[in-house]
Amino acid sequence: MKVVKFGGSSLADASQIEKVRSIIESDEQRRVVVVSAPGKRFSGDTKVTDLLIALGESIQTGDMDDAIYKQIIDRFRTMAEELNLPLRVAEMVRDKIDEAVKLVEKSSPHALDALKACGEDGSALLVSSYLHSKGSAASYVNPKEAGILVRDQVGGALVLEESFEQLYALRNRNEILVIPGFFGFTPEGQLVTFSRGGSDITGSIVAAGLKADMYENFTDVDSVYCVNPMYVDQPKQLTSLTYREMRELSYAGFSVFHDEALIPAFKEKIPVCIKNTNNPSAPGTMIVADLPERESHVVGIASDEGFLNLYVSKYLMNREVGFGRRLLQILEDEGVSFEHAPSGIDDMSVVLREHHLPPEKEEVVVQRIKEELQVDTVMIERDMAMIMIVGEGMNQTIGIASRAAVAFREADVNIEMINQGSSEVSMMFGVKSSNLSKAVQSLYHTFFE
Amino acid sequence: MKVVKFGGSSLADASQIEKVRSIIESDEQRRVVVVSAPGKRFSGDTKVTDLLIALGESIQTGDMDDAIYKQIIDRFRTMAEELNLPLRVAEMVRDKIDEAVKLVEKSSPHALDALKACGEDGSALLVSSYLHSKGSAASYVNPKEAGILVRDQVGGALVLEESFEQLYALRNRNEILVIPGFFGFTPEGQLVTFSRGGSDITGSIVAAGLKADMYENFTDVDSVYCVNPMYVDQPKQLTSLTYREMRELSYAGFSVFHDEALIPAFKEKIPVCIKNTNNPSAPGTMIVADLPERESHVVGIASDEGFLNLYVSKYLMNREVGFGRRLLQILEDEGVSFEHAPSGIDDMSVVLREHHLPPEKEEVVVQRIKEELQVDTVMIERDMAMIMIVGEGMNQTIGIASRAAVAFREADVNIEMINQGSSEVSMMFGVKSSNLSKAVQSLYHTFFE
Repeated sequence: MKVVKFGGSSLADASQIEKVRSIIESDEQRRVVVVSAPGKRFSGDTKVTDLLIALGESIQTGDMDDAIYKQIIDRFRTMAEELNLPLRVAEMVRDKIDEAVKLVEKSSPHALDALKACGEDGSALLVSSYLHSKGSAASYVNPKEAGILVRDQVGGALVLEESFEQLYALRNRNEILVIPGFFGFTPEGQLVTFSRGGSDITGSIVAAGLKADMYENFTDVDSVYCVNPMYVDQPKQLTSLTYREMRELSYAGFSVFHDEALIPAFKEKIPVCIKNTNNPSAPGTMIVADLPERESHVVGIASDEGFLNLYVSKYLMNREVGFGRRLLQILEDEGVSFEHAPSGIDDMSVVLREHHLPPEKEEVVVQRIKEELQVDTVMIERDMAMIMIVGEGMNQTIGIASRAAVAFREADVNIEMINQGSSEVSMMFGVKSSNLSKAVQSLYHTFFE
Repeated sequence: MKVVKFGGSSLADASQIEKVRSIIESDEQRRVVVVSAPGKRFSGDTKVTDLLIALGESIQTGDMDDAIYKQIIDRFRTMAEELNLPLRVAEMVRDKIDEAVKLVEKSSPHALDALKACGEDGSALLVSSYLHSKGSAASYVNPKEAGILVRDQVGGALVLEESFEQLYALRNRNEILVIPGFFGFTPEGQLVTFSRGGSDITGSIVAAGLKADMYENFTDVDSVYCVNPMYVDQPKQLTSLTYREMRELSYAGFSVFHDEALIPAFKEKIPVCIKNTNNPSAPGTMIVADLPERESHVVGIASDEGFLNLYVSKYLMNREVGFGRRLLQILEDEGVSFEHAPSGIDDMSVVLREHHLPPEKEEVVVQRIKEELQVDTVMIERDMAMIMIVGEGMNQTIGIASRAAVAFREADVNIEMINQGSSEVSMMFGVKSSNLSKAVQSLYHTFFE
């Protein structure tokens, strides 16, 4: 059996949902369906999740934005009408939204999570009803009923182990099950959402729990590209990748698949196939545990902007046992998570995402570093970008580093930072954001042309 | 005025001490002399400091090695005789050694430090007496009298700020002052040694305190080489370097100068000149604050062996705020200092010197990491070597990384780790120890030939 997940653009309107139905019904292995909230119908359109967030924020400021509310209700109603669904389907969606709105008005804990989850929940109601109306045996299954138990934590829920056993019981149900993605419930019954884009995570958890033969992830591209098409025109498509390669690529700018979503599938060694709802006959990209050795060791180039470098130097730092730990402790105390911490002899850099260090925190952090660590210098360098080249076996292949470094030189880009040696499947380079585009193009030219 | 420091080989026997006298007397600026313990007279000889350590250890096991004791006493006596010094000079040296031996027998705190310090102390007595016997106004000055105050800590003493003011008073003395290197005193009067090779540190502290015009460091090479001559035959000599370059080079295998010794001189911007006792007319290597821009940005290649890599991986590590800090905390709890900690997304490496993680500690550390951090993998990779290329302005020069990486490829050496981006004057590469020699040779070929 297959678990099939459809992304927001696959559920953006009635015609897309018709494609979804056709894909599900064309393969009887496709027994469990996980859905995102309705996405953009056209460039410039707003995703339902963004509308729900804006609605929630307007309520929190004490002045609910009725126009947004109407827009959300209308989107679901229009789809229900175009799909010729009974009136009560759109009413059920609206009732759930109204219920969540009340929670936000009462400032209940996690009320915003409940409101955000209405997008996926509505999609699941529409899709299950539509399959049913077309004669398929299909049911809406709430994540609570399915047994998706999570632990609440900053940055998004984490699945609990007991979920997988409970999910396995769904195998006994002899119909197509449609589950809304993006959220689960704590053991105390509280609805909590995963991090943004978390429907991929739900799909992966469900596939792992059900021990599915495959997890199909339908999106709006034929396959995963080896580089962000923003930088390179019509880049090479990837037919296969390992889990580790995909996880590293997803981390830095490969938004096609949520960077945490792979792990549950990976743990159960369930192949993941990325496919296109608008072109379902294309083979897509298959993500598996192992692959026969390939000719080129570099399979992809990922990149992301918005990093900063916190640089600290101190005379005889390397004599001071505990210096690095105390620097990281200050960041932790202030709730600032970091990405990397390369160090020299008398200096240390901490790379972090800019949004993790807003100006008010920056001041506190810099002050504490100066006072508590008695450093000689603290400096913050902004507008950094990170580029990762990814591929199994890469770090044991002589010459990859030199080809990459030559690519940077040919693009006339200075490498501000190199972080290589921890991950076995990637090599990371820091450059100024203004150089990102030409650096990525030169790397693509070097490894893929 | 100049502060002049002589290393162990410059004080190994009477004929060397005669050279030292001649050097001191040839320049009336050379007013303060800092000396090491007598070093090797010939290949295979034993340094006096090593004899003193062996003597101390034999006492601690309850069975003093009389042969070693005799060897030490004889070395000083022979030198005193050959220099025609009065009998009481050799007796004073012996009395001091006997006093320290008694402290070790009584297991007094820091007794071993007191015993080790006898080597430098004996050298200072011999040199000052010899200068005096030849008609120069010269005195032995104990570090306590000079005012070298230190804080005791694991790995070697750290100088206290108040030392510098006290030392300045020595400027008023109108004679040649000979100070034993390698040790100082705590404010409570306890003798404590610097880390091994610490006479360079004493010289630098004294030069800074006296605000000398130059700190001359006499050793047994004409100048600093750009690479360890163990790997390259007759490498290029360096006529000038900046402090920062020298400090980075000294850290990894450039044993010509103690890696902490530069800092006091650096803080007072006192030029340091490395010269050869056996060829004092050679210009040597001058180390200064700033240099005009040079053609090649790489001035030296340093390397050192004996590193290990502690590799840790854990599913969703990058979601866990505080993971890195807690890993470093475990090492700190166990008294293990680390060098670098590069991290990937779900993995982190900690590079440390092998001798900092003996087998019994390794077991505890690995066990704690497994239990307290609930990691998926802990692995230790030994026999790593680190190579540093060093040069001001290097990290802002496009193409240095690529030339280095190409050099590794041409040597058919895989780069296990790259650490670049924190230090502005160096780039660090980790390789397997077995590849060290050919990698260094290839880098030399690339940057210096």
